[in-house]
Amino acid sequence: MPRKVDHDERRQQVVEVVEDLVAETGVEGLTVRNVAQRAGCSTSIVSHYFASKLDLFLHTRRVVRGRAQARLLEEVEKGSDLLTALGTLLPKDAAGKRDWHTWLAFWGMAPVNPEVTEEHQSGAAEAREIFSTMMANARASGEITDTGTPEMDDIKIQIILNGIATLVLQEEDNWPAERQVDLLRDLLRGNFGYTG
Amino acid sequence: MPRKVDHDERRQQVVEVVEDLVAETGVEGLTVRNVAQRAGCSTSIVSHYFASKLDLFLHTRRVVRGRAQARLLEEVEKGSDLLTALGTLLPKDAAGKRDWHTWLAFWGMAPVNPEVTEEHQSGAAEAREIFSTMMANARASGEITDTGTPEMDDIKIQIILNGIATLVLQEEDNWPAERQVDLLRDLLRGNFGYTG
Repeated sequence: MPRKVDHDERRQQVVEVVEDLVAETGVEGLTVRNVAQRAGCSTSIVSHYFASKLDLFLHTRRVVRGRAQARLLEEVEKGSDLLTALGTLLPKDAAGKRDWHTWLAFWGMAPVNPEVTEEHQSGAAEAREIFSTMMANARASGEITDTGTPEMDDIKIQIILNGIATLVLQEEDNWPAERQVDLLRDLLRGNFGYTG
Repeated sequence: MPRKVDHDERRQQVVEVVEDLVAETGVEGLTVRNVAQRAGCSTSIVSHYFASKLDLFLHTRRVVRGRAQARLLEEVEKGSDLLTALGTLLPKDAAGKRDWHTWLAFWGMAPVNPEVTEEHQSGAAEAREIFSTMMANARASGEITDTGTPEMDDIKIQIILNGIATLVLQEEDNWPAERQVDLLRDLLRGNFGYTG
């Protein structure tokens, strides 16, 4: 099915271009024209795959999110410890920082747009579901020992990851990968009695 | 000095307009033309006060930041407990949500711009200084009891506040003010042995 491959490849290529553009110029530099120019194709081709600038960005955000979820689930399946699994979500390298910047730019979009709100909500809910499962497993195996408020585990993991990422992206030079992992470990211990 | 008052008033009025525009249309809707139209003046007047769109946004971000710091310091001077003082920074009402959205939009701006990077860094550093003082006081008074890693107190407070705000802004309906405060209390207890 060569047509299908072309289609997917084109959409994948566009995600890279969108992420680079948002990193270099912010959301405001994201236009169908700029994307086309950078992807080396005509604006009509980009418009064929994406109905609007918002559609471009929503697609990119979903791909970035899907990639992060896949990475996390892979670690879970391998039986990695909590720190290693959650550590895959930190902005440790250039690609991770770019993904988080796309995230932050998305959070800064007008919240009054229903499509944006919906993507915010489903993104947050899906992440929480994975975190809940991971934390339940970690409790069962004794990897975490705190018995305080398990029903808030997923929320707290979101707060810790989002919080670390906002700091790292504001002051990249202060946050080499190792320091990010140390901080994550420290927070897992403090909040959940993580034993690793 | 009526001229001075006019000048400050104009700049203050523009901050409100910028915040409203960013909330309604995202950073991309922020143009000198849109700001002027909404403020009911000519684009040349706006341009007289602000050199560029970036300048408009940086000014707004600084005002919002200054307002939050003033609110926090007022509570510190009153001798408010930690939860009350830090609680003033949560996106509890419409104004607080709008301020945080301006924040998020700013984080999503292109990090390669040196003026943006500088404002990120000085904003984060100033906040940490206040948090450090608050936490040192809270340790001295026995309001917090954990003796683990006091040198990380300021960082952890930033993570908790930024983390809560990112969740609230993505799913506003799930986060009435009271639930935000409960979560903050829970996190202060877990991370610092907060006794309040």
